[in-house]
Amino acid sequence: MLSVYSDDYFMQQAIKEAETALLKGEIPVGAVVVCDNKIIARGHNQTEQLHDVTAHAEMIAVTAAANNMGAKYLPDCTLYVTLEPCAMCAGALFWSQIGRVVYGAADDKRGFMRFGKALLHPKTTVEYGVREETCAELLTRFFKAKR
Amino acid sequence: MLSVYSDDYFMQQAIKEAETALLKGEIPVGAVVVCDNKIIARGHNQTEQLHDVTAHAEMIAVTAAANNMGAKYLPDCTLYVTLEPCAMCAGALFWSQIGRVVYGAADDKRGFMRFGKALLHPKTTVEYGVREETCAELLTRFFKAKR
Repeated sequence: MLSVYSDDYFMQQAIKEAETALLKGEIPVGAVVVCDNKIIARGHNQTEQLHDVTAHAEMIAVTAAANNMGAKYLPDCTLYVTLEPCAMCAGALFWSQIGRVVYGAADDKRGFMRFGKALLHPKTTVEYGVREETCAELLTRFFKAKR
Repeated sequence: MLSVYSDDYFMQQAIKEAETALLKGEIPVGAVVVCDNKIIARGHNQTEQLHDVTAHAEMIAVTAAANNMGAKYLPDCTLYVTLEPCAMCAGALFWSQIGRVVYGAADDKRGFMRFGKALLHPKTTVEYGVREETCAELLTRFFKAKR
């Protein structure tokens, strides 16, 4: 059973965002930002729709979270994202000073971990592998349909 | 004398953007995107005004350039920016596949070059040091006034 307010629960919410992206023909990546067990921002990849390579799920969610908080920094927040962030998104997370990042599937080709954790703020903790299979399966489905 | 359509000329335009940021109390960084000797986008740092850590000059200019071109990729464009881009902005430049990046002042603390050119697209060429003193002087003036 899915317990409320767990990493599992919030990753499910990020997966919902990824599913929305998939329905729009976008690479299915979704994210939510959580503060005090409350989702304060959501985002999904919109690079095609907006013709904007910076419109990744994490960028949209971080900007929306800052808007919601009326503050630039997010030290008490957690970002849940279905795919390992790229270097751009890791750089944005660095500037946001976000407290914690939880991602689902790894991205060996474009993920920030190729550069090590130095791209993130030293105070940011990282976890991964939450609902990994579901997160990865969405991407596999998308790229299979494209072929 | 300032020749038209030179790196020097376009960096001057980026400096104008940085000066606009300075007038607004923002860290003075400015950028322009040039395609076929035409400025197709401008941007200056707006992180304070927008309460958004992602609102760097380069991010704004790249998004605006893509809007202007109606295309996601900018292989035939040059970004001129007064300060060495951070990792986030380098990551955005990677995704944009921009042809060339020219920056003024170095940023030893937060610049992407700490990670090497691997953060940029392999096809992107980089130059730096154009109007370096003017670019750096704006930043020095800003941080001195803050103290």
